[in-house]
Amino acid sequence: MPDRTPTRDFTLIVRYAETDAQGVVHHANYLTWFEEGRSEFLRQQGCFYSDMERDGFFVIVAKATVEYRAPSFYEDRITIATTLQRGRGRLLEFSYKATNQDGVLVAEGQTRHLVLDAERRMVSIPEKYQKLINRIEKLVPFGG
Amino acid sequence: MPDRTPTRDFTLIVRYAETDAQGVVHHANYLTWFEEGRSEFLRQQGCFYSDMERDGFFVIVAKATVEYRAPSFYEDRITIATTLQRGRGRLLEFSYKATNQDGVLVAEGQTRHLVLDAERRMVSIPEKYQKLINRIEKLVPFGG
Amino acid sequence: MPDRTPTRDFTLIVRYAETDAQGVVHHANYLTWFEEGRSEFLRQQGCFYSDMERDGFFVIVAKATVEYRAPSFYEDRITIATTLQRGRGRLLEFSYKATNQDGVLVAEGQTRHLVLDAERRMVSIPEKYQKLINRIEKLVPFGG
Amino acid sequence: MPDRTPTRDFTLIVRYAETDAQGVVHHANYLTWFEEGRSEFLRQQGCFYSDMERDGFFVIVAKATVEYRAPSFYEDRITIATTLQRGRGRLLEFSYKATNQDGVLVAEGQTRHLVLDAERRMVSIPEKYQKLINRIEKLVPFGG
Repeated sequence: MPDRTPTRDFTLIVRYAETDAQGVVHHANYLTWFEEGRSEFLRQQGCFYSDMERDGFFVIVAKATVEYRAPSFYEDRITIATTLQRGRGRLLEFSYKATNQDGVLVAEGQTRHLVLDAERRMVSIPEKYQKLINRIEKLVPFGG
Repeated sequence: MPDRTPTRDFTLIVRYAETDAQGVVHHANYLTWFEEGRSEFLRQQGCFYSDMERDGFFVIVAKATVEYRAPSFYEDRITIATTLQRGRGRLLEFSYKATNQDGVLVAEGQTRHLVLDAERRMVSIPEKYQKLINRIEKLVPFGG
Repeated sequence: MPDRTPTRDFTLIVRYAETDAQGVVHHANYLTWFEEGRSEFLRQQGCFYSDMERDGFFVIVAKATVEYRAPSFYEDRITIATTLQRGRGRLLEFSYKATNQDGVLVAEGQTRHLVLDAERRMVSIPEKYQKLINRIEKLVPFGG
Repeated sequence: MPDRTPTRDFTLIVRYAETDAQGVVHHANYLTWFEEGRSEFLRQQGCFYSDMERDGFFVIVAKATVEYRAPSFYEDRITIATTLQRGRGRLLEFSYKATNQDGVLVAEGQTRHLVLDAERRMVSIPEKYQKLINRIEKLVPFGG
């Protein structure tokens, strides 16, 4: 039986290249981590984003917000908990919480996405992917 | 006479490494561009951030928001207009508008910053830098 | 009259995001700088790589070597001198010297490139681009 | 009993941010992957590089070479096999082979490293770390 809750975890080890001269992770990397959080979320939902692009659909980022709570360091073990907040019609929204190996919340954020077709026109989430998203229980009332 | 308006421009040419498989600039790079926008803003104000770090002060990012309006492409000429929105006490806030060579707004955003001392404790903007910031006229009423 | 020497300069200011926890520029960024060095080389030669891709040709990197001579720091002014070493048939080769604002050589390297068509098959440098490359005088005997 | 062979594996899933407009992984990322290959190598050897920096030693990259054999794509599963080639005196050398989920060699390379102390002076590999390296059997004759 598939997981029907709207949150999935993705864990990474901080790379040296992700640090900056302050000795901590550079703030732009959290957007990349969040992106991999939602990639992993979709993979666990049976939805490979690389397939979606092969089908001629592109998910773009329309808005992103990050709040930085504590620094992360090289070799930290960071878990990104990604929650699908909305996934109906033309809009996808995710939220993220990044915590380190000591359970400290290091950052949280939200992203809003639109779906484009091969001509970069805005479209609704393709049916095949909408079905996979609909398996997530908590989201049913959300879009109502 | 120094420029006393609160907005400064910084222009860059999009690098190939900044693009992604969608053929457009990856969304995380805008945070890096905004950062260079405020670096250049501070440099034009006589304030080199590298000096600030040598003085033992670190400006960290507490929050960042980006709204993506249009895609950017390799070799586009992007101008980041950086505006100091607040620079008093413990808080620095900047806003950004990124436009391409055709005048199209590609992204806009805001960042909020805190100042830390060498022990990573929150402090007020050091006097030497506060003075440089105070030269910007439009900000005087803002902090009132 | 076009510049017929095989070396062109490209200058950049080191970004904060390019530094790492050692306080210096992370070594992977030099490959990105070299790439922008050759982008600028080609632009000065009247050859926009973005046009080349629109024409259905892709220049890929087959081999890259970097030797690191001295560290670079945030806000350093780095000049990349890019030299076309070979540009005939199926092979393009460039060499690079990166020096900082004090004239210190910080890194040097070479890259070798192949040209692919839209189906990712190896092809010769397209005639239109070969002509632009042939304007560089010193290269004429090189390929002989 | 510790692993005494000189090769260790590290596996990663390609991130979207690592791709470029050619639809493949941008070539500079392989240096970052190799770096994480050797980070993981050292971790499996009981040697955390973050500890080393806390002890006041910095391993820098003196030279890097990458040969690109085949493209990598978003969501590919890449294994970096990192081999310690030399680890004695002032010199560390590693070689790398990156293969994808189908066993295709996508890139290989070498890096040469020097050890610096807190004042950025070249020093020999600190004894504590030399001991950990010496556990690798095949390397004993190498430095002879």
